[in-house]
Amino acid sequence: MKKIIIASTSTLHGGGYLDYLTDTLKEHFKSCSSLLFVPYARPGGISHDDYTKKAAEFFSSLNINVKGIHEFENPVEAVQNAEAIFTGGGNTFLLVTQLYQNKVMDAIKTVVEKGTPYLGTSAGSNICGLTMETTNDMPIIYPPSFDTLGLIPFNINPHYLDPIAGSTHMGETRETRIKEFHQFNPQPVLGLREGSWLEVNADIITLRGSLQARLFRQNTEPEEIETGTDLSWLK
Amino acid sequence: MKKIIIASTSTLHGGGYLDYLTDTLKEHFKSCSSLLFVPYARPGGISHDDYTKKAAEFFSSLNINVKGIHEFENPVEAVQNAEAIFTGGGNTFLLVTQLYQNKVMDAIKTVVEKGTPYLGTSAGSNICGLTMETTNDMPIIYPPSFDTLGLIPFNINPHYLDPIAGSTHMGETRETRIKEFHQFNPQPVLGLREGSWLEVNADIITLRGSLQARLFRQNTEPEEIETGTDLSWLK
Repeated sequence: MKKIIIASTSTLHGGGYLDYLTDTLKEHFKSCSSLLFVPYARPGGISHDDYTKKAAEFFSSLNINVKGIHEFENPVEAVQNAEAIFTGGGNTFLLVTQLYQNKVMDAIKTVVEKGTPYLGTSAGSNICGLTMETTNDMPIIYPPSFDTLGLIPFNINPHYLDPIAGSTHMGETRETRIKEFHQFNPQPVLGLREGSWLEVNADIITLRGSLQARLFRQNTEPEEIETGTDLSWLK
Repeated sequence: MKKIIIASTSTLHGGGYLDYLTDTLKEHFKSCSSLLFVPYARPGGISHDDYTKKAAEFFSSLNINVKGIHEFENPVEAVQNAEAIFTGGGNTFLLVTQLYQNKVMDAIKTVVEKGTPYLGTSAGSNICGLTMETTNDMPIIYPPSFDTLGLIPFNINPHYLDPIAGSTHMGETRETRIKEFHQFNPQPVLGLREGSWLEVNADIITLRGSLQARLFRQNTEPEEIETGTDLSWLK
């Protein structure tokens, strides 16, 4: 039975790391005393060790012991033996490259589908979708594939950003980029604003947090989704 | 002898398509009566035909006849026979995928190095660098490689955007993304603000337009480059 939190961001402006999710994570990981952290996305180039320390600090307040996947000699076994898994944000291209190079993409998919509780933030949420093709990140490294975990039957756009009124910048808006994605790909894209997350319980997918999310479907006008909405029908 | 314009954007806020570059392009293409347009990047999903029409409209005012590369049965020959080449902006992943699929990446490199005048805007500028790994675009399609034309010995970040003062958005700034790029890649990255361009004449690379550009080098603090600066030393 799947048990997944897919969060747009780890941190809200002015808040501490994972702070806004504390109550949710207490409940989500209530049966766990340890957690495997996947630091591969290395935000800002931070080291695996330093990133793992940051996650460990937060989870110590929940009495959960954190170990980084890079500390294990056999990362596939580490995934298979994990009580819970958290993939942190950073660069999605780097994350996906490392997941493939260490052969843990399939391993994570298998255990999470069987019920290992999973948390993803930002890049760690992006990989829960069918592909990483709706990431906002810079392609700093060439991954073997853009296919990701497919734990949900659509794609995620984390840190979803509405067009900025009055902007004079001519770069594409997020909405234009997702429209371009739909020229070549059929799956829906859920734009998760910072502060929103998806809660997956078995086959029920629910939008959580105080904000609406923006849903993009091929050949359809984008629509706003209310928090609390059951999105299990979406594919 | 290389003769290249590498522009951050095709269009300035409130201006018409290529308007701000009119005088520059009159000079750049003064010996040409025809131009081959590469519409592969398809901004917003526009068709090759519609995109080519848009380019043709502008260049008719310069008495230059535009044909799209998609109109030719043999795109490699079209490149080899072109008097001038213009690659328009849009999605860099799509552009690079199409350049490889149609086997014109090498052909364009060869003729431009031999002296065919080239204009790139946005995605069409991105590909002038060593790799497309500093694009801002969404990875909507998986290209066979991230390597690009390498007409200049560094990378371009077009539509360069300074951090927005007071922003509460937690997605990475452009500067953070480029810093992540430099964790894995040694080449310099030139952030070209909208309204800036590089003029390449043989081996001389000069920053043009009224703005400064922002130069990022591995293990070095970013620095501002004045317009008019000769960047031939940069690699």
